[in-house]
Amino acid sequence: MIELNRRSKIPIGDQLVDGMASLVKERSLSPGARLPSVRQLARRLGISHSSVVSAYGRLVSMGVIDAQRGSGHYVARRRHFSETADDEGGQQDPTDAVSYAMNALDIRADCVPAGSGFLPGSWFDEALPSSVIGHILRSKLNIASSAPVQGLSGFRGQLACKLDQQGIPATPGTLVTTFGASHAFSLIIRALIRPGDPVIVEDPGYPVLHAQLSTHGARLLPISRRMDGPDLDALEEAAKLERPRLCFIQTLFHNPTGSSMTAAQCHRLLALAERHNFLIVEDDVYGDLAPAESLRLAQLDELNRIFYVSSFTKVLSPALRVGFVAAPAPFVETIVRQKLMDVVSGSALQESIVCDVLRSGRYAKHLERTRTRLLKCRSEAEIALSEAGVELASQDPEGIFLWGKLRASLDLDDLVRQALANRIWLAKGSFFSPTGSYQNYLRFNAAYCHDLGLIHFLKERVALSPSR
Amino acid sequence: MIELNRRSKIPIGDQLVDGMASLVKERSLSPGARLPSVRQLARRLGISHSSVVSAYGRLVSMGVIDAQRGSGHYVARRRHFSETADDEGGQQDPTDAVSYAMNALDIRADCVPAGSGFLPGSWFDEALPSSVIGHILRSKLNIASSAPVQGLSGFRGQLACKLDQQGIPATPGTLVTTFGASHAFSLIIRALIRPGDPVIVEDPGYPVLHAQLSTHGARLLPISRRMDGPDLDALEEAAKLERPRLCFIQTLFHNPTGSSMTAAQCHRLLALAERHNFLIVEDDVYGDLAPAESLRLAQLDELNRIFYVSSFTKVLSPALRVGFVAAPAPFVETIVRQKLMDVVSGSALQESIVCDVLRSGRYAKHLERTRTRLLKCRSEAEIALSEAGVELASQDPEGIFLWGKLRASLDLDDLVRQALANRIWLAKGSFFSPTGSYQNYLRFNAAYCHDLGLIHFLKERVALSPSR
Repeated sequence: MIELNRRSKIPIGDQLVDGMASLVKERSLSPGARLPSVRQLARRLGISHSSVVSAYGRLVSMGVIDAQRGSGHYVARRRHFSETADDEGGQQDPTDAVSYAMNALDIRADCVPAGSGFLPGSWFDEALPSSVIGHILRSKLNIASSAPVQGLSGFRGQLACKLDQQGIPATPGTLVTTFGASHAFSLIIRALIRPGDPVIVEDPGYPVLHAQLSTHGARLLPISRRMDGPDLDALEEAAKLERPRLCFIQTLFHNPTGSSMTAAQCHRLLALAERHNFLIVEDDVYGDLAPAESLRLAQLDELNRIFYVSSFTKVLSPALRVGFVAAPAPFVETIVRQKLMDVVSGSALQESIVCDVLRSGRYAKHLERTRTRLLKCRSEAEIALSEAGVELASQDPEGIFLWGKLRASLDLDDLVRQALANRIWLAKGSFFSPTGSYQNYLRFNAAYCHDLGLIHFLKERVALSPSR
Repeated sequence: MIELNRRSKIPIGDQLVDGMASLVKERSLSPGARLPSVRQLARRLGISHSSVVSAYGRLVSMGVIDAQRGSGHYVARRRHFSETADDEGGQQDPTDAVSYAMNALDIRADCVPAGSGFLPGSWFDEALPSSVIGHILRSKLNIASSAPVQGLSGFRGQLACKLDQQGIPATPGTLVTTFGASHAFSLIIRALIRPGDPVIVEDPGYPVLHAQLSTHGARLLPISRRMDGPDLDALEEAAKLERPRLCFIQTLFHNPTGSSMTAAQCHRLLALAERHNFLIVEDDVYGDLAPAESLRLAQLDELNRIFYVSSFTKVLSPALRVGFVAAPAPFVETIVRQKLMDVVSGSALQESIVCDVLRSGRYAKHLERTRTRLLKCRSEAEIALSEAGVELASQDPEGIFLWGKLRASLDLDDLVRQALANRIWLAKGSFFSPTGSYQNYLRFNAAYCHDLGLIHFLKERVALSPSR
């Protein structure tokens, strides 16, 4: 199908990438079609394996094809982006985790964002009223200066105080600010992981993280995350067999299951990390919504082998991208260097705003209000969802997420499409699974599940659907 | 020197990395010492070449050792970061481009930042007064919502208008917002460059870009940037021989030489790109300071093979990290995906602020004021520096940078150290050179060169130094 011209000035690899992209674009290769294996294509075209591997890699990163572990390469099912780049806010039905994540950040204002990972906008008004920001800027911020690469020193000081209250012995020197938690993951991955390295992740877990790791070439070792925490027996087995360098865990209010780890599990996981010599990235983006006495891995480990990552995007304001990592001391420099080579430095404006909100005590008050509010929503949501035929796993009584199981006979792709037509945005469980499991699960945001439109929709399609 | 234990559970690669890092830390290997070649070390330890390559790669990214093209690996000359992470704002003498760049973002307030790339803080007061930001927030911004991955659509609309006025036909759909221009480079590099790919850069040029490319594994093809633009004969030669995929060029007010390309050079460079089929990233971070009629590559090419990158960090406020790339349509999606997998999305707060400053016409007025101010400073700076014994290349009469040649007999490392002791921050020319050239050059920021302390210092050490 593709003809390569060896006399052309265009490198063979480029010809292959361009040729494949054209075939996909003109639909000679249809969405979902399986591509020849690397070996087959290399033989057919008379080129090296590595040329084909490299071309497939580029096509994956261009979004033209998808790689599926163990089973080869397929033409991507999504529409080509350049056709749609100008129509704004359209809610297409996402078909992979990356387009799901893009979609999730751009939910139409007239939709009920029942599957969203964010709290409702109005909840943030009191945390960050514009009059306060105006005051911060007028009175304190020097808008004219850049932040040091590691982050504003005053802000890192405030962060160290906050972590100290949670029993995590971070110092300003071991903290690095980032543009959100995922940015911290990106820097850590680039600093520590080489292509081919095995990395433990939770299944289900955060889909952007899975995409970050796969794109970087890491080998994912998915470990079941159950309602009582990660399957530590399976984790031990994987650690023994595969000797991973890194393990990503969300201790509190796990996304998407909403579950939290017990103290005993934290202890056992750390002991495994010590025995099998792997490092742990603790994702704590929702942890500030947890009760004060909640235990984190970083508290037990004291930042010896834990990278503690959190962010203010989820809890303080989605309009801010401010996160941080507290890293074991020997790794601080490499993280700072990766940050320099990615974004050069953080935003002094954003960091000053969050610093002031922390220092003033406004953040602590906001958390208190938000927890109370969420607790109330959550108990209502549990009742409403159960009545609507969603089976909720027995789980943490607090937090933002509810993990709902639906009757296996339901076609969830169809349900999600119908919901969208009814202006309801649902999050399919399978997007959170690197193994494509959890096909009959949905992730619900407790803050939105009192919505009558949502509940009526679910009752009609779920509770009243024929059970096979 | 290193003993590997094959029975240990710790992987051999980790043992090697830890062992080498310890030897460096305890000074058994002294700074600057040459390390054994990959082949030698692999043979000596009885392990594979690829284990050594991987270990050296990790040590480079940890900042423990440096790689020098063609000549091997050396123990890094910098102090280990974890020892110094807690002392803030200390101005050490940087010894490599990366630590230079870190240093440049953290110049002590009591220093004259004569080598800085930023305009003076007070120049930004009128562009972004805090009362205006307070107003923006109170009246318009929905602080509660996140930005779509590609960037706020209203902001991309404003950017498209701005570019249209410069004759660049970008649409909101081809624009992607970033956390500054370097962030755009980082995303483009990850989207387009595979390890080993040859990439054309300017020598001298932007040191962070050189570090980004090298760390990513690109093969740098440095082309001389002279006062009359890049050496296009050399560039043509390199393009013929090496078939680069990408070329990075700063058309206007080049950093560090201050030079701008002529229309004829722009035309010829584009013709070369077409003939030899490479893409161009046009870095335009200082271009808004140039006269309205200035020609850019993106204007000639109409975004067919140009990635046009700019930022508001340099011209509007260093406290904001807001940049963007206008990409050829087929590449927009891959850039958006790379952005998602790095930072998820931009800051709606920052993007709203810049959007409003553009929409209100405040940005255009600020540019006008800044150009007039800079022009005045610049002519004073030229006279003062010449009198102080700095030979200025004949160059563009406008812009922020002056590229000064000093007598070859001067020890510039010593001069920079002495300057620091006198609270003057100078930027050594060699930091901007991927080939280590320009040892007797300094980059000056025109806005600071009227400072009497600086001029006296230079007169004493430069004009009055013995000429050999």
